Amino acid sequence: MKELEERIKAVGTVLPGNVLKVDGFLNHQVDPDLMQKIGEAFAARFKAAGVTKIWTVESSGIAPAVMTGLAMHCPVIFARKHKSLTLTDGLYTADVYSYTKQVTNQISIAQKYVAKDERVLIIDDFLANGQAVTGLMEIANQAKVEVVGAGIVIEKAFQPGRQELEAKGIPVMSLARIQSLAGGQVEFAPADEGE
Amino acid sequence: MKELEERIKAVGTVLPGNVLKVDGFLNHQVDPDLMQKIGEAFAARFKAAGVTKIWTVESSGIAPAVMTGLAMHCPVIFARKHKSLTLTDGLYTADVYSYTKQVTNQISIAQKYVAKDERVLIIDDFLANGQAVTGLMEIANQAKVEVVGAGIVIEKAFQPGRQELEAKGIPVMSLARIQSLAGGQVEFAPADEGE
Repeated sequence: MKELEERIKAVGTVLPGNVLKVDGFLNHQVDPDLMQKIGEAFAARFKAAGVTKIWTVESSGIAPAVMTGLAMHCPVIFARKHKSLTLTDGLYTADVYSYTKQVTNQISIAQKYVAKDERVLIIDDFLANGQAVTGLMEIANQAKVEVVGAGIVIEKAFQPGRQELEAKGIPVMSLARIQSLAGGQVEFAPADEGE
Repeated sequence: MKELEERIKAVGTVLPGNVLKVDGFLNHQVDPDLMQKIGEAFAARFKAAGVTKIWTVESSGIAPAVMTGLAMHCPVIFARKHKSLTLTDGLYTADVYSYTKQVTNQISIAQKYVAKDERVLIIDDFLANGQAVTGLMEIANQAKVEVVGAGIVIEKAFQPGRQELEAKGIPVMSLARIQSLAGGQVEFAPADEGE
């Protein structure tokens, strides 16, 4: 997505440890018009997948997920993130390790909002090692519902997240794919095309 | 807002301690089409206020705030919520006490995303004791920018949040106003009219 790549170039900053900071338009300050275009791109890509629900993880996934839901007229669930849960009645839970923050969180989704035969589209802001998406897939597994795809705003193509998802048969659409952040420079890999 | 009141009646649940649970459409599962209407209602109410930025607090405020931003073509900042911060360089911070969770969080906004002469519209999912909005107003104070109003999805009119904001001269627009949750029944007060 050309506009997204240009925005990353213009306002993204590269921090040590291959961290790309995009808090100018995605995960602190949010550009709603860009988010709408992002949502429309995911909706176009997955329109034939019979999506019944969109799942994401709080907080940075919420804006792109809700815009995708708007374009698909489809409800969104944002999994709650906790340090750990003692009361898990009525919840599906999974552990998610964050390499950036070096901390394990538990994510949870209320069982009552997961219907039988649900077809889930996962949306997230970043895909690097695939931990968040894998956690949501683990929950889908517990709930015995199908994940029909993953829509990612920014993929770090030099990390193994995509391979792991594709190995599990999950189609991935990333709107921007980072090839390298070496020397503080953002280099893109070819983005996924819509269908 | 009639559709919102009907949704609260239909899927909201009242828990002990005057807690209204609306995780079916607002703060766990989200209805994007309803959120869009909510955003449009806030945009209509505050269109003459010269809003340059929308502020909210993660996570439940993000969906209505981003939809308001979409309707106003205006960037949104969601304040980050932390247990406490040791590194606060470049951040405005304020303490926010949650009566529901009985815990104090620190919220923060990056200084570099707050311009001089900013005119801030605060959007939040709930207004009860006004702690979150007051925290954002404290940050606005530190940053010497003006808060031009507060758009609230659900106000607990039997708690003092609104009076405290209005006493500070902040116009409040609530789309649903809860008069009482006594006996597990939701009773509405007249909602605010648009302008």
